[in-house]
Amino acid sequence: MDYAKESLKMHYELRGKLEMTSRAAVDTKDALSLAYTPGVAAPCLEIQKDVNKSYELTRRWNTVAVVTDGTAVLGLGDIGPEAGMPVMEGKCVLFKEFGGVDAIPLCVRSKDVDDIVNTVRLLAGSFGGVNLEDISAPRCFEIEKKLKECCDIPIFHDDQHGTAVITLAGVINALKLVGKKLDEVKIVTSGAGAAGIAIIRLLISMGLKNVIMTDRKGAIYEGRDGLNPIKEEMAKITNYNHEKGTLTEVIKGADIFIGVSAPGTLTPDMVRTMAKDPIIFACANPTPEIFPDEAKAAGAAVVSTGRSDYPNQVNNVLCFPGIFRGALDVRASDINDEMKVAAAYAIAGLVSDEELNADYILPAAFDPRVKDAVAAAVAEAARKSGVARI
Amino acid sequence: MDYAKESLKMHYELRGKLEMTSRAAVDTKDALSLAYTPGVAAPCLEIQKDVNKSYELTRRWNTVAVVTDGTAVLGLGDIGPEAGMPVMEGKCVLFKEFGGVDAIPLCVRSKDVDDIVNTVRLLAGSFGGVNLEDISAPRCFEIEKKLKECCDIPIFHDDQHGTAVITLAGVINALKLVGKKLDEVKIVTSGAGAAGIAIIRLLISMGLKNVIMTDRKGAIYEGRDGLNPIKEEMAKITNYNHEKGTLTEVIKGADIFIGVSAPGTLTPDMVRTMAKDPIIFACANPTPEIFPDEAKAAGAAVVSTGRSDYPNQVNNVLCFPGIFRGALDVRASDINDEMKVAAAYAIAGLVSDEELNADYILPAAFDPRVKDAVAAAVAEAARKSGVARI
Repeated sequence: MDYAKESLKMHYELRGKLEMTSRAAVDTKDALSLAYTPGVAAPCLEIQKDVNKSYELTRRWNTVAVVTDGTAVLGLGDIGPEAGMPVMEGKCVLFKEFGGVDAIPLCVRSKDVDDIVNTVRLLAGSFGGVNLEDISAPRCFEIEKKLKECCDIPIFHDDQHGTAVITLAGVINALKLVGKKLDEVKIVTSGAGAAGIAIIRLLISMGLKNVIMTDRKGAIYEGRDGLNPIKEEMAKITNYNHEKGTLTEVIKGADIFIGVSAPGTLTPDMVRTMAKDPIIFACANPTPEIFPDEAKAAGAAVVSTGRSDYPNQVNNVLCFPGIFRGALDVRASDINDEMKVAAAYAIAGLVSDEELNADYILPAAFDPRVKDAVAAAVAEAARKSGVARI
Repeated sequence: MDYAKESLKMHYELRGKLEMTSRAAVDTKDALSLAYTPGVAAPCLEIQKDVNKSYELTRRWNTVAVVTDGTAVLGLGDIGPEAGMPVMEGKCVLFKEFGGVDAIPLCVRSKDVDDIVNTVRLLAGSFGGVNLEDISAPRCFEIEKKLKECCDIPIFHDDQHGTAVITLAGVINALKLVGKKLDEVKIVTSGAGAAGIAIIRLLISMGLKNVIMTDRKGAIYEGRDGLNPIKEEMAKITNYNHEKGTLTEVIKGADIFIGVSAPGTLTPDMVRTMAKDPIIFACANPTPEIFPDEAKAAGAAVVSTGRSDYPNQVNNVLCFPGIFRGALDVRASDINDEMKVAAAYAIAGLVSDEELNADYILPAAFDPRVKDAVAAAVAEAARKSGVARI
């Protein structure tokens, strides 16, 4: 199927993938008087007395804003807020269909960090959570950090944390398959953008010690020229041997490659220099750092990509609907690391030891068990870590 | 029916009067590839090339934000943004059911004019229009003015302009009934808030000359102590005889009373001092300035209130859904006076000369002809006044 052509046709026909619908009748005078004036004054006054009642008397309990500035849309880059809207609407559809969440797409006409922070902050009383989407690095880190500080609802940047959760789930199962442990393996990444950094941070929090991140200039190490503040920060907690050089050089002996970079970055020759049973996450989209067939021919034990036409797809739809479902269900004030890790284990756990094999380390995107498993694990982790409010 | 009790019960049961629903299938790999990645890149790129395509490829063409800061909710006053949400949700339900418009409720956690203006301005690319709601005067005037200057989509403050449109429609038919003309009558108002000022501005634009506004301190005239800037402005274009004194004094000889103030402001004795066939709009809600029975006993020819249990209800649901329907249908950049006047005439015109009588100067809220009549008139006025974009 020519997805571009067919998708464009579908979008012109649909004229919007979302629709706001009414759950209240207003077809008689009495119905109108209950849903609107004068009856509606009663729920208003209840919320005025206790603002938490907004979760019981309005749709806030189930509502998430999907917010972008259009600066890093898919692989298209900075295409502008309005042009990002088809992706945001699609995301909202996924929230609904895979998580039962009412999601509202909002495009912000500014690239200024404080503009975006203020817009979301001022609207936080309307939502139960906020999903940041397709905002370019390093601004996305600052926006997320500031919003987490000033908002009383969960702020989640799916491009970072959703990808990190699925990758962690894949790493858990892949390591199980090859009989290695996270705190003993060497991981090398290609790409130090939003996703790459979030993945490594989460893996480090889970015990990963030996990791080297690379960008277009090669290995990231403390003191390297031209590091932005976030890469400087990562240099401090990775690459403890201060290895320098290109990806070709530093990947030697690595157990796991994680690519969130560009097509063709990883060659079969590089795979051959990795440790025994190398594990490859080649998540550049739509064209991966290396295609699975090539990687396997070069000795890879497990290969995962972002594509639905190969096994082991790293697909965020496995996690963000369930994560928000769980967070909303317990009225969480945050989505913290404990909740992300719980989501990763829940996803990994859906592949039983008997089923686990090189072509099945992650459940399929349409696996109907995913949402409930992730939501339950996330809700429990929220309770245990003290961010649940009901 | 005990509306307060029943409404509270209904709100607890519903937990939100709105729901975001999906119009696109994502239940197969192919469907997902069309509604989301990779297919969705195609509509994104179309919009990047021509931002107006956002009206064709996303739901923007039919989407309106309903924005409040919770400072003037119903008659409850400043109850806070979250507490205003039940009204905003109700408003959105009316937008959908009476106008086919997808409306999104947004509560802003700030009373600062620039905060509210910036929030709406930065999100304007997500919507086809904005309805401001329950924002207190005089801030509402400044917010509306600033937003109209900086936004390329219609900004409409329904509490002002919706009420003004319906009142104008009522005035048109009431004057027809008693055989008087707008440019010859004397109108006295009680209340100089958002609605009162918008009503008088619109009536003046239609030819009204002799009008005195009153507030709690009596007649508003140039140079009176303690006038805020907006009342000073109104003093310049009203009360050309510089009449001073209380409502009781200045209402003598008036043809029309328009109350948007407080219960019991107008007494039967005052009505008796008005001109022959006095017309009364007593729109304080839920308790009017004077009850219809009392007003009629004192000689009123026509009485209109904000209540659904008396004839001639001034109900904004008669106009805002149709006005936005019409504005969205022609992708209007503004909702201007021409469009408001057209809406008023369309509403008034639904009462035929044969039907017109003292108890029927305005169509009923549930009259199924209203939406299409208003939308068509507004769309035509938008085209003629040059603000239509398709």
